[in-house]
Amino acid sequence: MPDIPAVSRRLLLGGALATGALAAGVGTAHAAPLAQAGAAPAPTRRRRPGQKSMIDVPFDVHKTVRVGVIGLGQRGSGMSEGWSVVPGCTVTAVCDIREDRARRTADRLAANGKPRPAEYGGSDASYAQMLRRDDVDLVYIATPWEFHYRQGKDALLAGKHVIVELPIATELDELWDLVDTSERTRRHLILSENCSYGRNELAMLKMSHEGLFGDVTNGHGGYLHDLRALLFSDTYYTDAWRRLWHTRSTASFYPMHGLAPIAAAMDINRGDRMTVLRATATEPKGLADYRERFIPKSHPSWKETYVNGDLVTCLIDTDRGRVIRAEHDVSSPRPYSRINSLAGSRGIFEDYAGVMATSGGRIYVEPDHSGHAWKPFDTYRKEFDHWLWKKIGDDAADNGGHGGMDYVLQWRTVQLMRAGLVPDIDVYDSAAWCAPIPLSVKSLAAGGRPVEVPDFTRGSWVNLRLGLDSRTSEMPPVA
Amino acid sequence: MPDIPAVSRRLLLGGALATGALAAGVGTAHAAPLAQAGAAPAPTRRRRPGQKSMIDVPFDVHKTVRVGVIGLGQRGSGMSEGWSVVPGCTVTAVCDIREDRARRTADRLAANGKPRPAEYGGSDASYAQMLRRDDVDLVYIATPWEFHYRQGKDALLAGKHVIVELPIATELDELWDLVDTSERTRRHLILSENCSYGRNELAMLKMSHEGLFGDVTNGHGGYLHDLRALLFSDTYYTDAWRRLWHTRSTASFYPMHGLAPIAAAMDINRGDRMTVLRATATEPKGLADYRERFIPKSHPSWKETYVNGDLVTCLIDTDRGRVIRAEHDVSSPRPYSRINSLAGSRGIFEDYAGVMATSGGRIYVEPDHSGHAWKPFDTYRKEFDHWLWKKIGDDAADNGGHGGMDYVLQWRTVQLMRAGLVPDIDVYDSAAWCAPIPLSVKSLAAGGRPVEVPDFTRGSWVNLRLGLDSRTSEMPPVA
Repeated sequence: MPDIPAVSRRLLLGGALATGALAAGVGTAHAAPLAQAGAAPAPTRRRRPGQKSMIDVPFDVHKTVRVGVIGLGQRGSGMSEGWSVVPGCTVTAVCDIREDRARRTADRLAANGKPRPAEYGGSDASYAQMLRRDDVDLVYIATPWEFHYRQGKDALLAGKHVIVELPIATELDELWDLVDTSERTRRHLILSENCSYGRNELAMLKMSHEGLFGDVTNGHGGYLHDLRALLFSDTYYTDAWRRLWHTRSTASFYPMHGLAPIAAAMDINRGDRMTVLRATATEPKGLADYRERFIPKSHPSWKETYVNGDLVTCLIDTDRGRVIRAEHDVSSPRPYSRINSLAGSRGIFEDYAGVMATSGGRIYVEPDHSGHAWKPFDTYRKEFDHWLWKKIGDDAADNGGHGGMDYVLQWRTVQLMRAGLVPDIDVYDSAAWCAPIPLSVKSLAAGGRPVEVPDFTRGSWVNLRLGLDSRTSEMPPVA
Repeated sequence: MPDIPAVSRRLLLGGALATGALAAGVGTAHAAPLAQAGAAPAPTRRRRPGQKSMIDVPFDVHKTVRVGVIGLGQRGSGMSEGWSVVPGCTVTAVCDIREDRARRTADRLAANGKPRPAEYGGSDASYAQMLRRDDVDLVYIATPWEFHYRQGKDALLAGKHVIVELPIATELDELWDLVDTSERTRRHLILSENCSYGRNELAMLKMSHEGLFGDVTNGHGGYLHDLRALLFSDTYYTDAWRRLWHTRSTASFYPMHGLAPIAAAMDINRGDRMTVLRATATEPKGLADYRERFIPKSHPSWKETYVNGDLVTCLIDTDRGRVIRAEHDVSSPRPYSRINSLAGSRGIFEDYAGVMATSGGRIYVEPDHSGHAWKPFDTYRKEFDHWLWKKIGDDAADNGGHGGMDYVLQWRTVQLMRAGLVPDIDVYDSAAWCAPIPLSVKSLAAGGRPVEVPDFTRGSWVNLRLGLDSRTSEMPPVA
């Protein structure tokens, strides 16, 4: 068991989280009556004999972390450079179905003075060859969504740890299979959820744990990003893979960026769990309207019919009576937002506030505040700045995209592996945060009826555990 | 039929609203395929033979509007003064179960140089005596919620028009009964929804009608108002009537202030209708937590158990494929918000957006805006300022509360009656906006399942009609 740092002693002794989690686990006098059927067994599947949980299983110590990258499009090529500059990390192999991309990435890393990775490419079986290498410890997957499950599973079966771009899979069976495969191979599979490492998100998490919101009752997150121009671009998403998803089904494809930080702040799988999801979707208007205005009639997209609603909203209940709202909208004109809002009996935080272009967060918490007037979040963000940002924040924005949170994720992942620690984000988090994809499909197909959320932890969710709020030792020095 | 002003000719010819409404009614080539079962008959009840709709039925002309007030607590006493200063309006009678309140209100109006109203009070049957007067044209009801239905119905049966504070009723049967009674008595029953007359709300409505949002796909409203201190006050809500509602059931009690303006902007009952509602609620934490911290153990509230969730969220589908999110939270610490957000294929407006105490609205609409940066709403609000605010805005804040929208509602209601026009808000609007109360109870009791929303218009909802966006003639001169 990892050494329990001071912050979690405070939680165990007095925080709202601790009271709730102990109550849920042990049944103390403080247990609030739960309106949900908290005691009913969650839908689950049996483990094989001998198969054990991956919860609290640390990485083996890795002197250096050797990364193999599959998928070198917009995301993978940028992230390859990020991995290569993390201390104690080397990109040893890169793979893309297009060989020229593997070459270009290898060239770029070499030009940056990094060891030249081996190149794989030319067919959709190339990645399997890469997985046979014994100088790859961690596989990073950034291919189109439809390949993530298969490639993630194969990487685990090849004995590698895996970190997968969103989502790890899109079907419930696949999510369960990845959980089981991780447990059977004793290798971690991690959703590459950079937003979990966002600066505001981590401050919000710490504040939640330190009781500033009192009893947390609700939180809201989502992915509200006007991607219309990129979706119709001929160069951004290879073969328009992402726009085509909008022709196949209606679902919340990608709520994780907003959902994950809220789930962390509510200790989903660490004292609470999501129980029920219900979804609703608007009619699809945005993509067809954009096409009508801007896309020449000769363009192949004119053969397409868009079925995914512009705004898909999931309302999720938790066992402890919280509500999470997760939204997805990539086809309407609007400024970017992950919403990122958390509220409870003592206060509320709302991110992406502000009437001008540069928007920040706003907060109202008792007893600091009264009179029902918002205050800017800045001072709180600084006071509750996560140690990761204090340590590497200055480098992060230089080395990674999305304001630096990409690099924070990469640095942290490497550190966990080099120091032999428990991952912040495990396969249970990853499966839970991606579950709204198939669950929203199911709910929408049933007119928005509530559908049960599986318990991928098979009962372990009741136990208090620290995740992203862990304190750990320093990054081991690079030899 | 009222004269169709210029703005609605534009709608009929080319606006997004008109295209959709005509499609829904007539089935033109432009009709978008509706994912919802738009053609299925809505749950409804038969009219009696000869019973006709009150849609588009104008008031008779009233030279002066004579108002009788029932309920002189916090709300009723203030609004009595408001009625009394509207040109061409006289408060002829006031009633409260506590006679001293009737006397105080009568004293105050007389002291202000207004005709002294007759006083009724002393028993719960006093209002029935007031209703027998033949010098009351309009009854204004501001008693605790539990009395609204009975008093509203009785006022209609006594041949008066009625304007009722939120809600007109709390049960589906009662809502239908008020609709039927209005139709049978040929008297209007109006929800006293001041927020429908809010300055931002009316600008948002005009912008929606003029196509600035393109195809409107979603809108969000609610009532997020930290009432904890008032709920526990011994003087604010007589006999703690409002706090006691939180001990009886879990429901969205009061979403109308936020829902009504969104419904108006989507032309609910005027080209679209709400079809399905699903609700979710958090655990109740806020009131018990407040009581624990601030209320002496001797206080009667310590005998109470609070069951209504702090945040109750309704997700509502419409026939034309829009989604409305309506929220209710009066028991958590937070700055005030009615949310008031509308979005579509061309842009989005979000009210209550600022980072600091004085928060304004923000907007992003194509083609005016690009680059995904919010702009402040001010210039749009000014450009689309509703004629009512241009006309009486300066007086409104002096004469009424809530920034002036109370007085705007009162002035407009009197004008409609004096000029013999169709009400902006009719019994169908009122019933629809209050329906989430019993529907949320129903959905929550069924684990959040979708429940059908009745069609109080019995089919007339398909027809385009102007409501709050009407232009009308001047207020007739006061003789």
